[in-house]
Amino acid sequence: MIILGLDPGLASFGWAILEKDRKSGLSIGDCGVIKTPAGELLGNRLCKIESELKDIIKNNVPDMASIEELFFVKNIKTAMAVSHARGVAILACSRAGLKINEFTPIQVKQALTGYGQADKKQVGFMVQKILKMQTLPKDDNTVDAIALGICLAHSCGVV
Amino acid sequence: MIILGLDPGLASFGWAILEKDRKSGLSIGDCGVIKTPAGELLGNRLCKIESELKDIIKNNVPDMASIEELFFVKNIKTAMAVSHARGVAILACSRAGLKINEFTPIQVKQALTGYGQADKKQVGFMVQKILKMQTLPKDDNTVDAIALGICLAHSCGVV
Repeated sequence: MIILGLDPGLASFGWAILEKDRKSGLSIGDCGVIKTPAGELLGNRLCKIESELKDIIKNNVPDMASIEELFFVKNIKTAMAVSHARGVAILACSRAGLKINEFTPIQVKQALTGYGQADKKQVGFMVQKILKMQTLPKDDNTVDAIALGICLAHSCGVV
Repeated sequence: MIILGLDPGLASFGWAILEKDRKSGLSIGDCGVIKTPAGELLGNRLCKIESELKDIIKNNVPDMASIEELFFVKNIKTAMAVSHARGVAILACSRAGLKINEFTPIQVKQALTGYGQADKKQVGFMVQKILKMQTLPKDDNTVDAIALGICLAHSCGVV
């Protein structure tokens, strides 16, 4: 089973491909972040996100997607910007026939660390441990996308 | 010049095609509302909105689009749902090469009635008067989409 983890954002959109191997369990296939410049037109930024996600889906052929659900919102303006990118991502996944699973940050933290209020460091530690990664990606959105993928694998009984 | 007016929403997405005629000024070409059921998967709802907008653009070949900008937000959950649909619409317009113009509700009301705090009835009255429509569309989102189109035409010096 191949899982696409997505941490949506307009400026930085994290993504990760996780693979289930029968012997070694869950492993990371590829991961990264789609960046779009703040000064660019919104339409161009959304086109870039959609194009890159389409390529990622085409190249990795995931079976399902795991995407962050915005629940508690600190900044309305940011939440709306993220929702634009999230809408485009859900469209791209849906067009590719992927089943989309949504998890709140609390659910992700709970699944990875057993504690819904865990901080970024604790989540990163568990991501690295579960996937036996030598180093963590530098970008927080990429790490969050991996965590979302693990959370889905966990809910499917893979981890 | 052909203008596509868009009043984004997830459940009801209003759209309107306005045409500038050299003799009679601005007129309404076509208008309507894309409805998606609340019980449907978010991905399917966004796919439906994108598909219908693509068809509207293909059939009417607008030169530019006018879309509502969310500014003051009463309900965060609604604002995020609308932003998903809005992201997909901006993507569809941008993919079709349309220049996208954004207007706040206050700007639209100001352009149509001269008063930024005008109510729905006053906006509807001016929409009907400017376009010499015998009756107004029943759906509020459709009327708002027409108003957005008029607002863009106004800002381009067409009205």
